[in-house]
Amino acid sequence: MKRGDPAPRILRDLGEFGFIERVRRRFGGPVRPGEIGIGDDGAVLPSPRGKVVLSTDLLVEGTHFDLRYFRPEELGWRALSANLSDLAAMGASPVCYLVALAAPPGAPLRFLEGVFRGMARAARPSGIRLMGGDTCRGEKVVLSLTVMGKVSAGKAATRDGARPGDLLFVTGEPGWSRLGLRLLSGGRPRNPSGWRREAMRRHLTPVARWKEGAAAAKCGAVSAMIDLSDGLLQDLSHLLAPGRMGAVLDEKAFRLSARFRKAAAELKEDPLAAFLAGGEDYELLMAVRPHRYHAFRNAARTFPAGAFPIGVVTRRGGVRVRRADGSWMTGAGLPRGFSHFTRRRD
Amino acid sequence: MKRGDPAPRILRDLGEFGFIERVRRRFGGPVRPGEIGIGDDGAVLPSPRGKVVLSTDLLVEGTHFDLRYFRPEELGWRALSANLSDLAAMGASPVCYLVALAAPPGAPLRFLEGVFRGMARAARPSGIRLMGGDTCRGEKVVLSLTVMGKVSAGKAATRDGARPGDLLFVTGEPGWSRLGLRLLSGGRPRNPSGWRREAMRRHLTPVARWKEGAAAAKCGAVSAMIDLSDGLLQDLSHLLAPGRMGAVLDEKAFRLSARFRKAAAELKEDPLAAFLAGGEDYELLMAVRPHRYHAFRNAARTFPAGAFPIGVVTRRGGVRVRRADGSWMTGAGLPRGFSHFTRRRD
Repeated sequence: MKRGDPAPRILRDLGEFGFIERVRRRFGGPVRPGEIGIGDDGAVLPSPRGKVVLSTDLLVEGTHFDLRYFRPEELGWRALSANLSDLAAMGASPVCYLVALAAPPGAPLRFLEGVFRGMARAARPSGIRLMGGDTCRGEKVVLSLTVMGKVSAGKAATRDGARPGDLLFVTGEPGWSRLGLRLLSGGRPRNPSGWRREAMRRHLTPVARWKEGAAAAKCGAVSAMIDLSDGLLQDLSHLLAPGRMGAVLDEKAFRLSARFRKAAAELKEDPLAAFLAGGEDYELLMAVRPHRYHAFRNAARTFPAGAFPIGVVTRRGGVRVRRADGSWMTGAGLPRGFSHFTRRRD
Repeated sequence: MKRGDPAPRILRDLGEFGFIERVRRRFGGPVRPGEIGIGDDGAVLPSPRGKVVLSTDLLVEGTHFDLRYFRPEELGWRALSANLSDLAAMGASPVCYLVALAAPPGAPLRFLEGVFRGMARAARPSGIRLMGGDTCRGEKVVLSLTVMGKVSAGKAATRDGARPGDLLFVTGEPGWSRLGLRLLSGGRPRNPSGWRREAMRRHLTPVARWKEGAAAAKCGAVSAMIDLSDGLLQDLSHLLAPGRMGAVLDEKAFRLSARFRKAAAELKEDPLAAFLAGGEDYELLMAVRPHRYHAFRNAARTFPAGAFPIGVVTRRGGVRVRRADGSWMTGAGLPRGFSHFTRRRD
């Protein structure tokens, strides 16, 4: 930039290093003594006791988000929450995150800083800190996040510990995100209230269940855990796969609130399909050893999002859902979740 | 895939989970007891003693690589090497890496697996292990790598420790990568030999100086270190910035071999400009305390790429290059490096 230019407006006005410095000043750190944050070749942190957990995610414009629906703050919030959710599913406490960003040189700074602001807001409750990253040119906006968390020795929760007889629980109320997506695809409502506001919030600014995840891993009763990103049934299949197990789910046990049912009805969505296959809820699915149920119940009392039973792991493969009217949904009769490459999200 | 289909050929044939499983089997781990690798929500590793170093990089098709020049193995090799180079610049030893990949569903598996194979090859000498990642749909190929390394307590090398009087050294012979790029931009030669082969190798499959970086950080003589990705002068400016210092470089001290000069002449490139501003060499630039030079010299004897003096840090700002003929290059007379967003790479 030449002197006398107006305030920088697009990425090109600041250049790579100007942009990095601005992000460091506004959104970086805090960096504690002995640590190194944004601006060097890598982030340096003391090793936490126990184990480190690392997770990374790539968000591509047009695939993961549509800039017509998402405000930049929401995009940033959601990107970090999705990564915090991965830490939550391992039972890890958040430590730091790195952001790699590709954007066209003409990208408005207001947009880019909005993204970082959204991440900073989603970061605040857990105290996770931005400690580094990368920026480069790209035709589309691409955001890659990496999060580091820590777990006490031996306490990481994995996807592969479930056994037949384990009880299945979910936090919160999966399905809202799908309802939000459906609502938004008809155009973003102005000043939404009631179920509309709830559905939008759950889709645009989901809250990662890292408190729930850490408490669940610690209580010693959870045999397997995963976060719900591709839809409950799809993600459940990952918990069951290692032992070629199945599950029986019971609609009567599902938490489908009156507000949720109302939203689904207004949007002409099947509430059960939204609950079972919605995706992007970032709730946690847990398998709980039945003989340790009391320890789990005590831990679950501290969960801000609560924990609700949905069914049980079975030796017999396949997932069967017992409907409230006593009928069964199985196999091809089950609603389907999301998988990249093979199907388009509808 | 239906049964009886031919072998999977494109990404869509395997789907997301099929692809991840294949990567895990072929390129993942090894995963040691108590660790968790590819396939869960995050990677889990024991905390190394001392400090962890994290770095992440985003590589976008069309910006960082041109699929016309790069074979997939080379792309993967180079992507991991660039990240290993960031660890090297912190004096960290490589521990593990994560790969997030966006690709169109029609992307050939041969291409994608070639990328992972290239990373695995570049990983072998240091023993760094693939422990996780993410895959998603995207119109263009985007590759995001995250590396974790470790340093003994207090030994991380940073960009901001240089002082006036410090001696400047580079490993290897920066500039080759630019010569390689120039050569390739005229069409990839078949069966190259001599300088052509060298230039291509340095551009397509650079070797990260992680051994040099770790030894340099350990010897206690290096006050600041950075890896050369944007060009020597550009990267040098980061070492000088914290103290608003400058440097005097001496062309007579530069290692510009006969082969290097020959390559530059054949490609009609100024060898000095290639050396000073070439970029993407992944050599290391180090500032060395003069009173600890002997400790550095002893460490440098173990450097596979060697270390060569180029000049000295000065209190006075600005970089001046004393040419072999006694004339000076300064200010706008210096060749320029690379910065995303502001200039196109030529």
